[in-house]
Amino acid sequence: MKKKSFSFSTASVDYFFDADFSYLEKLASKESTVVITDDHVFAKHKKKFKGWNTIVLKPGEEYKVQQTVDVIIDQLIEMGADRKTTLVGVGGGVVTDITGYVAGIYMRGIRFGLVPTSLLAMVDASIGGKNGIDVGVYKNMVGLIRQPSFLLYDISFLQSLPRNEWQNGFAEIIKHACIKDAAMFRHLQQHTLADFRKDKKLLAALIQKNALLKTKVVVADEFEQGERKLLNYGHTLGHAIENMYELSHGQAISIGMTYAALMSQQLKHFSGAEEVIALLHKYGLPTYAEFDGKQAFKVLMKDKKKDNVSINYILLQKIGKGVIQPLLLVQLQELLRSDFK
Amino acid sequence: MKKKSFSFSTASVDYFFDADFSYLEKLASKESTVVITDDHVFAKHKKKFKGWNTIVLKPGEEYKVQQTVDVIIDQLIEMGADRKTTLVGVGGGVVTDITGYVAGIYMRGIRFGLVPTSLLAMVDASIGGKNGIDVGVYKNMVGLIRQPSFLLYDISFLQSLPRNEWQNGFAEIIKHACIKDAAMFRHLQQHTLADFRKDKKLLAALIQKNALLKTKVVVADEFEQGERKLLNYGHTLGHAIENMYELSHGQAISIGMTYAALMSQQLKHFSGAEEVIALLHKYGLPTYAEFDGKQAFKVLMKDKKKDNVSINYILLQKIGKGVIQPLLLVQLQELLRSDFK
Repeated sequence: MKKKSFSFSTASVDYFFDADFSYLEKLASKESTVVITDDHVFAKHKKKFKGWNTIVLKPGEEYKVQQTVDVIIDQLIEMGADRKTTLVGVGGGVVTDITGYVAGIYMRGIRFGLVPTSLLAMVDASIGGKNGIDVGVYKNMVGLIRQPSFLLYDISFLQSLPRNEWQNGFAEIIKHACIKDAAMFRHLQQHTLADFRKDKKLLAALIQKNALLKTKVVVADEFEQGERKLLNYGHTLGHAIENMYELSHGQAISIGMTYAALMSQQLKHFSGAEEVIALLHKYGLPTYAEFDGKQAFKVLMKDKKKDNVSINYILLQKIGKGVIQPLLLVQLQELLRSDFK
Repeated sequence: MKKKSFSFSTASVDYFFDADFSYLEKLASKESTVVITDDHVFAKHKKKFKGWNTIVLKPGEEYKVQQTVDVIIDQLIEMGADRKTTLVGVGGGVVTDITGYVAGIYMRGIRFGLVPTSLLAMVDASIGGKNGIDVGVYKNMVGLIRQPSFLLYDISFLQSLPRNEWQNGFAEIIKHACIKDAAMFRHLQQHTLADFRKDKKLLAALIQKNALLKTKVVVADEFEQGERKLLNYGHTLGHAIENMYELSHGQAISIGMTYAALMSQQLKHFSGAEEVIALLHKYGLPTYAEFDGKQAFKVLMKDKKKDNVSINYILLQKIGKGVIQPLLLVQLQELLRSDFK
């Protein structure tokens, strides 16, 4: 087990890599902890939860809504959870987002930790303190930025991960490579998804590299005034089409990254668009796609990142270097009409 | 108009005393602001809201619940509110609490300001960044501590204040005097509610004194690790019986202060209990009351301030000096059975 600590604006976060779930007892006592997980994770890892007070949610993004928060809060009251209770979210991004959000608002904020069980949550969703719920088609419309006390990495959870969840995780890993790490981009080009699934050490190293990459970006800019915006590469269009077409998050942002790479070619003389698209394809992700540009633009108009006339769009200058590009809304509307082919 | 600024942990808050509502335009532009108020305030001060985007809530504590938050968020999305929008809560404690809470979670936090229109909100509820909603009988079970950008005091709003609202405000004013300010306690003894209602200058000075008293306590201990707990004088029992018997907040905490004064007499040799009770009575507040001590204890068991075996109770050492007294739960249970008579 490797421990690393990072200081955020209001709290320090401890990361425990290459750990075993049982180590959780050292971080939170069973008596004063409530674990939140979902049906899938609970059914596949029942033994791990023995002795822990556990709230089991229905799985899936469609439950990342206020109604689920209401149910959890009622249960916490019922269980007698108080200001000294620790919440621990054990699951993918939906579980870690909801756990962080509930911990932030219950009794005006209680301690929480996260045990990400999906690749996506390990490299992205559980890191950086952003939490939230969806409102209608609008993703994360409501939420907070508030850091967990700890993150515990037990990659044995990944054994039961379905194929599309691997893709979701690699979509964010490729995103990190595109905006920040050309060497990792090459490393991903030289391997395949199968390599990482076979070789635990290779996988653990990749997870840790990505967790730390994201953490460093967030520590430098916790409240997203600059640098942190880069992590939205592929996400602006991605979020708009994700709920419109019921795509997985990985599929949606892969299409978003494809279009942003092509826009970068047009606006930034970016020469690596084909390489980005090929890498996404290699890891089983969709790239070019038919979507209703007009409708996507309408949904985009509710995006948190826009103001009245422009939107901050993340483009690539070169592989490993993302840039923040303010785009006029009219310009974006025009670009969404073109098919870049 | 008098401006004062205070620095909290993450933000600075500007107070504008003796101001006119129209000054709001200097603090937030009409185009990028959404005002939240309630039917009562809106109906009585319609002219003031002209030209402002306004969401009008149903009045009353029973609407300080998640469902109201849901409705506001849907309306904000509908109105196109984005990260650059400022929310302004114009109303009593319910409106200012809900506004602060929604501003804290909408798009992970947007700017907000408050225009308290009740005496209670002016001297207490709008100050210190605590916001929240009730869950069932449990008050403020969900919420945040997050400071507004500004507070604007226009005492012309008080002209339409009903009698019981004056009592609510004076209950908190007397609380401040009890825990922190013996001179103000004497000042209140020398005057009557009618004096303050007649004399605008006397009233404005009292409001400002109380707003600043609370602000200083909060600045010193924003996240309630010590000193700020004193502001809970009368509130622990008060909150428990408030919803049980549908008392007004002022009535409930007045009864709470009465019992806490009597407990202080027993546990702290406090000699001023009769004076405290007489002052509450003078300002039209109830003191001794019949209530179900067993049921109140049960509700208390869900109080945010308790842990498994004890609760921090605020007692008085002398008039003007509150103290934090950890009480064993069994001890409290016993005390609630006694009628002190």
